[in-house]
Amino acid sequence: MNEYIYRCFDCGKTICKDEVEKNLLYLCPVCGKVEKNKPLKGILLIEYDYNSIKRKFSKESIFDLELGKFWQYNYLWPLDKAKLDSIPDKLQKLALPSNCISKLSYGGKDFFVLDDTSNPTLSFKDRASSLVALKAIELGITKIATASTGNAGSSLAGICARLGLQSVVFVPKNIPEAKRIQIQSYGAEFVLVEGDYDLAFDICLEIGTQEKWYNRNTAYNPLTIEGKKSAAYDIFIALKNKLPNCIFVPTGDGVILSGLYKGFKELNELGWIKKIPKLISVQAEGSNAFARYIENKKFDYIPASSIADSICSGAPRALYLGVEAIEKTNGFVIVVSDNEIIDAQKIAAKDFGMLLEPSSSAVFAAYRKVKHIYESIDDTSLLLFTGNGLKDVLSLSKWNQNIVPLTQKQIKDKYLESCLDP
Amino acid sequence: MNEYIYRCFDCGKTICKDEVEKNLLYLCPVCGKVEKNKPLKGILLIEYDYNSIKRKFSKESIFDLELGKFWQYNYLWPLDKAKLDSIPDKLQKLALPSNCISKLSYGGKDFFVLDDTSNPTLSFKDRASSLVALKAIELGITKIATASTGNAGSSLAGICARLGLQSVVFVPKNIPEAKRIQIQSYGAEFVLVEGDYDLAFDICLEIGTQEKWYNRNTAYNPLTIEGKKSAAYDIFIALKNKLPNCIFVPTGDGVILSGLYKGFKELNELGWIKKIPKLISVQAEGSNAFARYIENKKFDYIPASSIADSICSGAPRALYLGVEAIEKTNGFVIVVSDNEIIDAQKIAAKDFGMLLEPSSSAVFAAYRKVKHIYESIDDTSLLLFTGNGLKDVLSLSKWNQNIVPLTQKQIKDKYLESCLDP
Repeated sequence: MNEYIYRCFDCGKTICKDEVEKNLLYLCPVCGKVEKNKPLKGILLIEYDYNSIKRKFSKESIFDLELGKFWQYNYLWPLDKAKLDSIPDKLQKLALPSNCISKLSYGGKDFFVLDDTSNPTLSFKDRASSLVALKAIELGITKIATASTGNAGSSLAGICARLGLQSVVFVPKNIPEAKRIQIQSYGAEFVLVEGDYDLAFDICLEIGTQEKWYNRNTAYNPLTIEGKKSAAYDIFIALKNKLPNCIFVPTGDGVILSGLYKGFKELNELGWIKKIPKLISVQAEGSNAFARYIENKKFDYIPASSIADSICSGAPRALYLGVEAIEKTNGFVIVVSDNEIIDAQKIAAKDFGMLLEPSSSAVFAAYRKVKHIYESIDDTSLLLFTGNGLKDVLSLSKWNQNIVPLTQKQIKDKYLESCLDP
Repeated sequence: MNEYIYRCFDCGKTICKDEVEKNLLYLCPVCGKVEKNKPLKGILLIEYDYNSIKRKFSKESIFDLELGKFWQYNYLWPLDKAKLDSIPDKLQKLALPSNCISKLSYGGKDFFVLDDTSNPTLSFKDRASSLVALKAIELGITKIATASTGNAGSSLAGICARLGLQSVVFVPKNIPEAKRIQIQSYGAEFVLVEGDYDLAFDICLEIGTQEKWYNRNTAYNPLTIEGKKSAAYDIFIALKNKLPNCIFVPTGDGVILSGLYKGFKELNELGWIKKIPKLISVQAEGSNAFARYIENKKFDYIPASSIADSICSGAPRALYLGVEAIEKTNGFVIVVSDNEIIDAQKIAAKDFGMLLEPSSSAVFAAYRKVKHIYESIDDTSLLLFTGNGLKDVLSLSKWNQNIVPLTQKQIKDKYLESCLDP
């Protein structure tokens, strides 16, 4: 049985795992607070006995593992090993592609990519959903609820379907059609809320508590952050002692930033890495709460709007954790416009053969914007591609207009002409 | 350098590889024929020196390989090893997920799945496009053309983008919007033809020959069949000496059937397997040319129509090869209705957490239809899932209607009520 405790990010209070998990606690019982249009207070983080792990496991032992199967190094996860060992077939259904880290080249310079666009539901969110769902199985809970603007709900619904669990997804009424269809298809109980994401969040908490469902609200359930830390381990397993200097991270609620930072901090604490990569937060112009917080040192709520709906968040739930991840790694925020996001989406499709949803092409847009800086200092970068473009065909359709069909004769004339061109 | 020849399926004529490849021949120069609304005549198949391979390589040597990277056993592919060795980064971009074979359970019975829904462009067609594109690179050709109703074009465009090649895709004017957008996004030269697939096929051949582009028309280019044979090898690598007894194959043009059969026949000739699995062809009611041919022993053209557009073919290009694959393996054809296809799509999404396009859910529909037979004889089956449902969101939208948003009060009342239910 793995030993771990929960610790409040804000007040530092520690709580034993049974108290949290048996009582379905999520936030700190002392200072935890969910307030409308504000970041969460009292987010809990999991801590392991790193000294004991260090004595038992070597850095090399993790290098032999296959990517995308975090449960293989179970000593770093809040899961019961005996339970995991009893469900090998279920675990297999959660495996991410083992070739998710690759190298691309742009403008004469190579960079790495963590490509989560081929995950079970084609997004990075599967990392969080999988861990949450495995915990539900361990706790004997068969129903998991979440509020979602689209991707988290679709991920939870798909992962639950794979594991034989039920899901309930509360979404605001303006959800894009394709995301609604994904969630419904997987058989989730689908609740369309007359209101915004904040209201869906509140209702999900209230009804979920009443019904004793397990809750996957992002940042609120500590296991969403914990699940996303698996990306840090996958990068470590793939690149071993040659970690990138910079990692470009799409940032909405700040949970990916928080998870990555937690993973690298653990690796550092275990003595397996010496330096944590610089975490570079990527935001959309219309959803730039992190950029504003870092500049003004205070949070103010502005409703968010961008083509990159997966990173739209006026009140990032994990703002304070995300900011710590950026500042402690000497990172910074890059803000990109919707036009830059679309340009990057085009280039990624045409040059890399990868369809990215806007939140991922935003990351590439940010890289394009600053890569000249890194060229001069011979840096290495890794970009997170977190969602497949086919989850949001509408964004692709904006720059791919239909064209007029041509007759056989017109086509022949056209190519004959081009042949005759001098 | 691998030794291989081309042999005509119909007249048996053999042609040396240089004659075919340097002159960009595709069909047999003696009996090859492309006729409107008819299967192709004179399709060429590649033959290796199996005795020599058998002496040099053991069955066990292939078991150690990673799935989804066919170029690793280059002696069974019409490719120049030296060239392959010089482009490792390009090959990496073509890798299919290594966890593509998995086990599912339905109605109390397990079956295997070859899941190609997470391939680079989310479809099985990447197997053919990749091989064709590697051959183009070897031949020093930078532009590849194809006629397509959607998926083959999208696959070719995506694979070419990954490899830095250009693609030209001729599509009939009634192409579904989402497939058009995929092809255009990848940067293909996109030619919308005022006419049907047959006309697009003809124009593609004519213009392509004139322009000296390499041609990927399915069944016409022998490497499309050859590329699809990789599925047989992946099944062999994953399941080793325990091959399934039956493989359910979505069937439109018959190229997947032909490729699979060729792969298993090779494995048999190499002495690595004793028995070829029964190939069970799955067709849609509105596109059942194989079923009719096997019953009537003659081909008659009927325009095809089904929700499963990827397996719609009134005149299957590889009809005669596909029929041989079915008959020589004691297989048969199962025909499913559009309703059965949609039902199966629903179950796959809800029970397996997998979004399948209709051509793939047709395969599961066929399995559902006959599985009671196999239950009684303790058979094992493998189903090919060849395309991701997000490539055709429209099919999913048919059974996932939008619902009315509820206010906070309505939601509370609803769940409170269900709590009070006896």
